[in-house]
Amino acid sequence: MPEWFEAINWAAIGTKAVTVTAQLVGILIVFFIVRAVGRRFISSGFTKMSAQRNISPGRTKTLEKLASSVFSYILIFIVITLIVGVFEYDVTALIAGAGIVGLAIGFGAQGLVSDIVTGFFILLEKQIDVDEYVTLAGLDGVVEEVGLRTTKLRGFDGTVHYIPNREIGSLSNHSRSNMRALVDIGISYDDNIDEAAKVMQEACDKVKAELGDTITEGPDVLGVQTLGDSEVVLRVLAKTANMEQWGVERLLRKEIKEAFDRNGIEIPFPHQVNMYKGEQHG
Amino acid sequence: MPEWFEAINWAAIGTKAVTVTAQLVGILIVFFIVRAVGRRFISSGFTKMSAQRNISPGRTKTLEKLASSVFSYILIFIVITLIVGVFEYDVTALIAGAGIVGLAIGFGAQGLVSDIVTGFFILLEKQIDVDEYVTLAGLDGVVEEVGLRTTKLRGFDGTVHYIPNREIGSLSNHSRSNMRALVDIGISYDDNIDEAAKVMQEACDKVKAELGDTITEGPDVLGVQTLGDSEVVLRVLAKTANMEQWGVERLLRKEIKEAFDRNGIEIPFPHQVNMYKGEQHG
Amino acid sequence: MPEWFEAINWAAIGTKAVTVTAQLVGILIVFFIVRAVGRRFISSGFTKMSAQRNISPGRTKTLEKLASSVFSYILIFIVITLIVGVFEYDVTALIAGAGIVGLAIGFGAQGLVSDIVTGFFILLEKQIDVDEYVTLAGLDGVVEEVGLRTTKLRGFDGTVHYIPNREIGSLSNHSRSNMRALVDIGISYDDNIDEAAKVMQEACDKVKAELGDTITEGPDVLGVQTLGDSEVVLRVLAKTANMEQWGVERLLRKEIKEAFDRNGIEIPFPHQVNMYKGEQHG
Amino acid sequence: MPEWFEAINWAAIGTKAVTVTAQLVGILIVFFIVRAVGRRFISSGFTKMSAQRNISPGRTKTLEKLASSVFSYILIFIVITLIVGVFEYDVTALIAGAGIVGLAIGFGAQGLVSDIVTGFFILLEKQIDVDEYVTLAGLDGVVEEVGLRTTKLRGFDGTVHYIPNREIGSLSNHSRSNMRALVDIGISYDDNIDEAAKVMQEACDKVKAELGDTITEGPDVLGVQTLGDSEVVLRVLAKTANMEQWGVERLLRKEIKEAFDRNGIEIPFPHQVNMYKGEQHG
Amino acid sequence: MPEWFEAINWAAIGTKAVTVTAQLVGILIVFFIVRAVGRRFISSGFTKMSAQRNISPGRTKTLEKLASSVFSYILIFIVITLIVGVFEYDVTALIAGAGIVGLAIGFGAQGLVSDIVTGFFILLEKQIDVDEYVTLAGLDGVVEEVGLRTTKLRGFDGTVHYIPNREIGSLSNHSRSNMRALVDIGISYDDNIDEAAKVMQEACDKVKAELGDTITEGPDVLGVQTLGDSEVVLRVLAKTANMEQWGVERLLRKEIKEAFDRNGIEIPFPHQVNMYKGEQHG
Amino acid sequence: MPEWFEAINWAAIGTKAVTVTAQLVGILIVFFIVRAVGRRFISSGFTKMSAQRNISPGRTKTLEKLASSVFSYILIFIVITLIVGVFEYDVTALIAGAGIVGLAIGFGAQGLVSDIVTGFFILLEKQIDVDEYVTLAGLDGVVEEVGLRTTKLRGFDGTVHYIPNREIGSLSNHSRSNMRALVDIGISYDDNIDEAAKVMQEACDKVKAELGDTITEGPDVLGVQTLGDSEVVLRVLAKTANMEQWGVERLLRKEIKEAFDRNGIEIPFPHQVNMYKGEQHG
Amino acid sequence: MPEWFEAINWAAIGTKAVTVTAQLVGILIVFFIVRAVGRRFISSGFTKMSAQRNISPGRTKTLEKLASSVFSYILIFIVITLIVGVFEYDVTALIAGAGIVGLAIGFGAQGLVSDIVTGFFILLEKQIDVDEYVTLAGLDGVVEEVGLRTTKLRGFDGTVHYIPNREIGSLSNHSRSNMRALVDIGISYDDNIDEAAKVMQEACDKVKAELGDTITEGPDVLGVQTLGDSEVVLRVLAKTANMEQWGVERLLRKEIKEAFDRNGIEIPFPHQVNMYKGEQHG
Repeated sequence: MPEWFEAINWAAIGTKAVTVTAQLVGILIVFFIVRAVGRRFISSGFTKMSAQRNISPGRTKTLEKLASSVFSYILIFIVITLIVGVFEYDVTALIAGAGIVGLAIGFGAQGLVSDIVTGFFILLEKQIDVDEYVTLAGLDGVVEEVGLRTTKLRGFDGTVHYIPNREIGSLSNHSRSNMRALVDIGISYDDNIDEAAKVMQEACDKVKAELGDTITEGPDVLGVQTLGDSEVVLRVLAKTANMEQWGVERLLRKEIKEAFDRNGIEIPFPHQVNMYKGEQHG
Repeated sequence: MPEWFEAINWAAIGTKAVTVTAQLVGILIVFFIVRAVGRRFISSGFTKMSAQRNISPGRTKTLEKLASSVFSYILIFIVITLIVGVFEYDVTALIAGAGIVGLAIGFGAQGLVSDIVTGFFILLEKQIDVDEYVTLAGLDGVVEEVGLRTTKLRGFDGTVHYIPNREIGSLSNHSRSNMRALVDIGISYDDNIDEAAKVMQEACDKVKAELGDTITEGPDVLGVQTLGDSEVVLRVLAKTANMEQWGVERLLRKEIKEAFDRNGIEIPFPHQVNMYKGEQHG
Repeated sequence: MPEWFEAINWAAIGTKAVTVTAQLVGILIVFFIVRAVGRRFISSGFTKMSAQRNISPGRTKTLEKLASSVFSYILIFIVITLIVGVFEYDVTALIAGAGIVGLAIGFGAQGLVSDIVTGFFILLEKQIDVDEYVTLAGLDGVVEEVGLRTTKLRGFDGTVHYIPNREIGSLSNHSRSNMRALVDIGISYDDNIDEAAKVMQEACDKVKAELGDTITEGPDVLGVQTLGDSEVVLRVLAKTANMEQWGVERLLRKEIKEAFDRNGIEIPFPHQVNMYKGEQHG
Repeated sequence: MPEWFEAINWAAIGTKAVTVTAQLVGILIVFFIVRAVGRRFISSGFTKMSAQRNISPGRTKTLEKLASSVFSYILIFIVITLIVGVFEYDVTALIAGAGIVGLAIGFGAQGLVSDIVTGFFILLEKQIDVDEYVTLAGLDGVVEEVGLRTTKLRGFDGTVHYIPNREIGSLSNHSRSNMRALVDIGISYDDNIDEAAKVMQEACDKVKAELGDTITEGPDVLGVQTLGDSEVVLRVLAKTANMEQWGVERLLRKEIKEAFDRNGIEIPFPHQVNMYKGEQHG
Repeated sequence: MPEWFEAINWAAIGTKAVTVTAQLVGILIVFFIVRAVGRRFISSGFTKMSAQRNISPGRTKTLEKLASSVFSYILIFIVITLIVGVFEYDVTALIAGAGIVGLAIGFGAQGLVSDIVTGFFILLEKQIDVDEYVTLAGLDGVVEEVGLRTTKLRGFDGTVHYIPNREIGSLSNHSRSNMRALVDIGISYDDNIDEAAKVMQEACDKVKAELGDTITEGPDVLGVQTLGDSEVVLRVLAKTANMEQWGVERLLRKEIKEAFDRNGIEIPFPHQVNMYKGEQHG
Repeated sequence: MPEWFEAINWAAIGTKAVTVTAQLVGILIVFFIVRAVGRRFISSGFTKMSAQRNISPGRTKTLEKLASSVFSYILIFIVITLIVGVFEYDVTALIAGAGIVGLAIGFGAQGLVSDIVTGFFILLEKQIDVDEYVTLAGLDGVVEEVGLRTTKLRGFDGTVHYIPNREIGSLSNHSRSNMRALVDIGISYDDNIDEAAKVMQEACDKVKAELGDTITEGPDVLGVQTLGDSEVVLRVLAKTANMEQWGVERLLRKEIKEAFDRNGIEIPFPHQVNMYKGEQHG
Repeated sequence: MPEWFEAINWAAIGTKAVTVTAQLVGILIVFFIVRAVGRRFISSGFTKMSAQRNISPGRTKTLEKLASSVFSYILIFIVITLIVGVFEYDVTALIAGAGIVGLAIGFGAQGLVSDIVTGFFILLEKQIDVDEYVTLAGLDGVVEEVGLRTTKLRGFDGTVHYIPNREIGSLSNHSRSNMRALVDIGISYDDNIDEAAKVMQEACDKVKAELGDTITEGPDVLGVQTLGDSEVVLRVLAKTANMEQWGVERLLRKEIKEAFDRNGIEIPFPHQVNMYKGEQHG
C-alpha cells in the first residue's frame, strides 16, 4: 500500500459512517414524534377554539386541515435541511447560493403569505360569510367564496370580483343587523315646518303600518337637517330588516311626495333672485 | 474487533452523552426559573400600571394574560431551539433552510405583529372604549369590540366594520367631552346685521331655556363669518352634552328660521344681476 | 528533498482527493434521485389538481411544465453551489462578493418573481380566460393572452394593454354570469308616480317580449330612486345574457321615452324658480 | 471505573467551571460600571442641554428619566445575551430561532420606535406645548398632552384626537406669534376704487381704535387683489394678538359692510349679461 | 538562529505557497471553462428564442450581447472575490466593510436593476416598437427609442419624454390594430329617435363611401346611449385603420351635423324651465 | 493540588492576559491616531470646501463641528465594540441579542438619519437661507431657522411650521432673483383688440414710470392668451424686484381697469344667449 | 522565569509579527496596483464612451473625475478594513457594532446614492442640458445647473427650484424639437362649417406669411374637434420653432378672431333654451 493510502484515517471514516447513520435515525425518530405531537396539539387547539367561539364543525375542520398541512410542510422542510447538514456539506453554502434568488423569491412571495395570514383570520373570526353583502377593498358585492388566498364576490351588476385577501384591509359587512333607511326631503322656505313634519310623520306611520315587521324602528321625522339654498331639508330615519332598507326608502319617498301633494306642501325647485340693470347697450 | 471499530472514540461518545444530558437538564431548570420570574415580573408590572393609570381590573387582567402568554410562547420557542442546538445539528442549517420561507413569512406576518402592537397600546391607553362614537381609518361608528388584532365598529347605517388595528393611525374619539353645535345662517345684504343678530340671540336663548343642561355653553351669535355671493353669513356656536349636538343644531335651525320669519328677516335665495344686450338677431 | 518539501502532508492531500471525488459522486447521485422524485411528485400533484379542479388538460400541462422547469433550475443552482463548496473555497466569499450586487438584483428582480407568483395563481384558479371581458389594474378589455409574466388585453378602442401580473390586485371578470341592465329615468314632479310606473312597466314588458331569452329576469320598475332637483327618478332593473346589457339598456331607454311621449308623461328639463327685485338702477 | 468514564476530561470541566464563573463575575462588574457611567453621562448631558436650550426643569427631568430607562433596558438586554453566551450554547442558535419571529416583530414594532424617536424630538425642541393650537397630521386642535408615543389633541368640535407621533411629519403651530387677519371684499366695477379704498380704510381705523392692542399692525387696505367675474376684489390685512384673528376678521367684515352701506358702495351680486335669440319656436 | 526563528514553521509556509498557486491556477481554469460554456449556452438560448418568438436577428443580437456581457461581469466579479479569498484575508471583512456602504448602494441602485429587468422584457416581448404610438407611465407619444434603461417618447406637442423603464407598469400600445371611432351626438327630446337615427346612418354611409378602406367596420348607429338633461344622446361606432380614428371622427361629426341641418333635426342647447314668483319687492 | 486543578492551563491564561493587555493598548493607540488624522482631514476638507464654494466662515464652522462630532461618535462606538471583542465574548452574541431590537431601532431611526443627510446638503449647498421666502413640503413661508434635523418656517398668517428635513424633496426658493408679475385681463368680444392693447400698454408705461427700478423689465402686453366664454383675455408681463411682484400686480390691475374705464373699454361680465320655447303650460 | 512565562509561545508571536508585516506590505502593493489599473480602466472607458456617444470633452471629464474618485474612496475603504482584519480583531465585531447604526445610516443615505445614480445617467445620456426648458418632478422651468445630487431649475416666475435627482422619474424636455401650436376655436351652430374653415385657413396663411420660418408646418384647419354645448369647435394645428409656440398661438387667436369679425362669423357665448311655467304664485 502506498504511503498516502495508509495515512488515510479509515477509522475516522468508519466512525463517521456510524455517526451519520445514527444521526439520520435520530432525526427521523424526532421527526415522527414532533409531527405526532404537533398534530395532536393543533387538533385539540382547534377543538377548543371551535367550542369557545361557536365556529361550525365544518369551518373548524377546514382550518384544522390547513394548519396541520402547513405544520407538516414546515417540518419536512426542516428535516431535509437537517439531513443535508448531516452529510456535512456546509449548508451555509446554500445560503450563499440562495442569497440572490432567495431574496427575490422571498419578496415576491410575501404577498402570498400575506394573503394566507389575512385569509386565516377572516375565516377564524367569521368576519364574512358566504351570501353576505359586504364591501371589500372598495368593491361591493355578495360573497361567493372565502378562500385562504382569494375571496370571490359577485357584484350587483353580475361581475365576479376576485380579491386577493391581502388587499382586504378594513372590511364592511352589511348583513349583520338591521339597517338604516334614511330619507332627506326639502320643503319650501314658505311652508310651515311643523305642519310639514306632521304630514311626513303621517306618511311614515302609513308606511310602517303597511310593511309591518320589515321596519323595526321608526320611521321618525328628526327635524331640520339643513337650511339649503332653496329649501328647508327635513330628515326621516328608520331601522329596517336587513337588505330591506332600499325598498323602504323608495316607499317612504313615494308616500311622502304624495302626502305633500295632497297637503299642498311644495318640494321646491332651485330658486334664484334676479335683479336687472339697464345700461347695457342694445 | 475490526480496526476501525476500535478507533471509534467510545470515551468521547460517553462524555458527549453526559454533557448532553447535563445541558438538557440545565436548559429546563433555567427555563422554569426564567418563566416563573418573568411571569411574576409581568404580573407586578401590570398591577403597578393598573394602579397608576386607573385601568379597570378587568382590562388589566386581559392585558396581563396577553403579555404573559406572549412571554411563554417566546420562551418555549427559545428552549426548543436550544435543545436542537444541544444535539449539535448546526442550527445555522435551520437559518439556511428557513431563509427563503422565513423571509416571506416574516414579511407576510409583520401585519399581524403590527396589529397586536397597535392594539395593545389602544387598550393600554384607553384611547377608545366599547359604546363610544369614534372615527377609525376613515370609518365612523360606535365601538362594539376592541381586540388585539381587530376593532369592530357598528356604523350608523347598521354596517359592521372590521378594522385591523394596524390600519388605525390617528384616531378621533367623539365621546370624551361636550360637543360643539355650530349653525351658519345667511341673511340678506339688505337686512341690518345688528338687528338680525339680536333676533338670532333671542331664538338661541329660547332654545337654551327649553333644553336646559343639554346645552352647557351658549348658544351665542359670534358675528359675520363670511360675506357670501348673495348673503351675509352669521355664525351661532354652542357646547352641548355629548351626542346631543345634532339635535341641538336641528332645533337651533328651526327656531332661528321661525324667528326670522316672524321678524321679517330674509334668508336669501341665490341672487343674480342680469343685464341685457339687444344685438342678437331674432 | 528539502526540509519544507517533506513537511508537506502528502497523505492529507491524498485523503483530500479521495474525499472530494466521493463527495462529487455523492452530490450527483443525490441530485439525480431528487430530480426524479421531485418531477414525479410535481407531475402527480398536477394530475390530482387537474382532476379535482376541472382544469383542462392543456392548461394543466402548461402549469406542470412550468413548475417542473422552475424545480430543475433551482436544483441545478443548488448543485453548482455544493460543488463549489466541495472545493472548499469559502463560499461565504461569494456572499460577500454578491452582497452589493445581489441586494440590488434581488430587489430589482422581485417584481419578476411577483409577476410569476401572481400569474401562476391566475392560471391555476382560472380567474380569467382568453376572450373574457375583464377589468385589470383599472383597464377594461377583452383578454387576448394570459401569461406567467404579462397579461394582454385588447381595449374596446383597439388599444393593446400589456399588464405585468404584479399590477393585478383585485380583478373583475364581467363574463361569468348574466348581467344587470339598469335604467334610471326622471319624471316631472307634476306627473302621477303610479301611472308613470305603469307606462314604464308596459314598455318593459314589450322589450321583454321582443328580446326573449336575452333577458333572463325582469325588466321591472323598482320605484322612486331619488327625489331630484327637478325630477322624480324611477329605476328599472333587468338581468340579461352576458354582454347584452348595453343593448338592452339602449332599447329600454328608447321604448320608455317613446311610451312616455305617447302617454303625455314629461321627462323634465332642469327647473328654476325665478324671483325679481327692482331696485337695481338702469 | 469504566473505560469511557476515565476518558472524560474532568480537568477540562474544572477549567470550564472556573472560566465560566470568572466570566459571569466579569460581565456583572462591567455591567455595573457601564451603567453607572452611562447614567451619569445621560444626566450631565441633559443638564447641559437644559441650560443651553432653556427647557424647563420638569421637561428635562421627563426626558432624562426616559433616556435613562431606555439605556438601562438595552444594557440588561445585552447582559442577558452575554450570560447566555457564557454557557456556550451557540447564541447564533437564538438568531436562527428568532429569525422568522424576529423579523416580523422588528418590522411590526418599528412604528413604536418611530413614535418614540419623533416624540423625543418634539419634546426636546419644544415644537408644541400643552394648550397651543396646532395642526398635526391634518388635524386641527388644542394640544392636551404630548407623550412619547402619542399626542392628544382636542378639536374645536370637542372630538379628542389620538395621533401616533410617527404620523406627525410637518407640523404647524398657530400659537407662537401674532396672527394675520385677512379680509377680501368685492366692490362693483362701477364704483371708484380709490373712494372705496378710502371708506374701507376709515372702517379699518375705527376697528383699530375700538380693539386697541388686540391689533398689532394695520389693518390696511392693500389694493386690487383680483378683477373677478362680477367684482373688483380689495384686500385688507392686519396683524392681531394670537387667537384673536377670527374675531378681528368678523368685526372688520361687519364694519366695512356697514360703511359701504352708508356710503352707497355696492358689494355686488354675481352678474350676467343676457342676449336673446328669437328663432326658437313656441 | 534565535529560538523564535526556528520555531517558525517554514514547512507550513511552503505548503501554503504551493496550495495558493494551485488554487489560483484552478480558479482561472474553472473561470475560462465556465465562461466558455456560459456564453455558448446564452448564444444557443437566444437563437432558440429568436426562432420560437419571431424576433428579428438584429434585436436578438442586441439582447444576446447584453446577456453575455452581464454574464461576464458577474463571473469576473466572482473570480476576484475568490482570489482575494485564496489569500486568506477573511473576506467577511469585506462584508463588514461593505455593510453600511453596500446597503446604501444596493438600495440606491436597485432602481437601475429594475430598469434593466423591465427593459429586457419589453424588448424581448416586443411590447413596443419604434414609431408606435403608445401610453407609458401616463405619457402619450410616439416611441423614438427603446433602451435597456430608458425609453424615449416624442409627445404630440414636440416634447421629448425620457421614461426610466421601471416607471412603466401597465403600458398601452395604440398601434397594433384597427381603432375605434366613436361619436356621441345629442338630439332634441322633441325629435323622433328613429328618424334621427336614419339620417345619421345615411351620413355614416356617405362617410364610409367617401373614405373607403380607411373604415374597416361600420360606422353604425347603436341607439340611445343616455337620456341627458336636455338631449337624447345617440352613439355612432366605427372601426378605422390605425391612427385614422381622429380624422374619421371629425368627418363623422361634420357630416352628421350638416345632415341634421338639412333634415331639420335639432342638436339642442342646454334647456331650463323657468317659473316665477312675484313676492320679491322691487 | 487536585488533579483537575493542575490540568488547568495556567500558562495559557498568562499568555491570554498579556495578549489582552497588548490588544487594549494597541486599540487605544490606533484610536487616538485615527481620531487625530480624521479630525485634521475633516477640518482641511471644510476649509477647502468653504474656499471653493463661497460659504461664510460661520456656516463652515457649524458644518465642520457637526461632521467632526459625528466622526467621533462613530469612532468611540467602534472602539467599544473592539474592546468587548478583545475579551472574547463572542460579539456575534450581540448581534443575536440586538437582532430584534436593532432592526426595529434601525428602521425607526432611519428617519432621523435621513433628516440629517438632507439637512447637511441643504446647508452645504445653501439652497435656503434665513429670511428667504420659500416653499418646502407644500408649505409657504419665510425661513426662520435651518437646522440639521428640522427647518422652521413662518407662514404669512403667523403660523410656525416645523418641517423635518426628510420631508423636503424638491424645494422652491422665491428669493433668489427678480420675480414675474403677471396680469390677465379680459375685454369684450366687441372691443378692438389692438386698441385695448394700446390702452393697456399706456397704463403699463405709467406704472413703470411711477415705480421706477422696482420694475426691471416690462410691463408689456403679450397678446391674446385665451378666447374665453365671454371675454378675450390679454396678458401683461413684467419682471420686478424680489417680493415686489404682488404690489406691482395690484397696481397694474388698478391702473388698467381705470384706463379701460376712461377709454370706454369693457371688462365683460359672463354672457349668456337665451332662447325661448313656449310650449310649457302655465 | 516563572512557569507561566516560559509557557508563552514566543515563537508564535514572532511568526505572527512577520506574517502581519508581510500582509500589510502585500495589501498596500495590491492596493496601488489595483488603483492604477482601475483608474486607467475608467479613463479609457470614458474616452471610448465620449467618442461613441458624442459627449463633449468637458462633460466627459466631469464624469470621469467623478467615477475615478468614487473608485478611490471605495478602494481606500476596503484597504482600511483589510488592515483592521490583519490585526485579527474579529472584523465581524464591526458588523455587530455597526449593525444598528449601519442599518439606519444605510437606509437614511440610500436617497443620496439614488440621487447620484440618477444624476450620473442624466448627465451621461444628456437627457437635459443647461438653458433647456424642461419639466422635472412636476415643476416647469429652465435648467440652470445639472449636478450629481441636485438639479436646479428657474421657473418662469423667477422661483429657483432645487430638485434632488432621485425625485426625477419620467422627465420631459421641451427644447429638443419644433413645437406644436394648437388653437381650438368655437363657431356658432348656425354658421356654415366649410365657410368658417375657409376663413380660418386664410387667417392661418396670413400668419404663416407674416412669421416665415418661425412656423415650420401648417397652420392647418383640421376639422370639427367637438360638438359642444353651444358651439362647433374647430381645431388649428401648426409646428413652430422651439419656444415660439406660445407667440404663434397668440397671433393665430388674434388673427382668426379678427377674420371672423370681418366675415360675420360668430364666436358664440354660452346658449340656453328657456321655457316657462306659470303656476308659481306671485
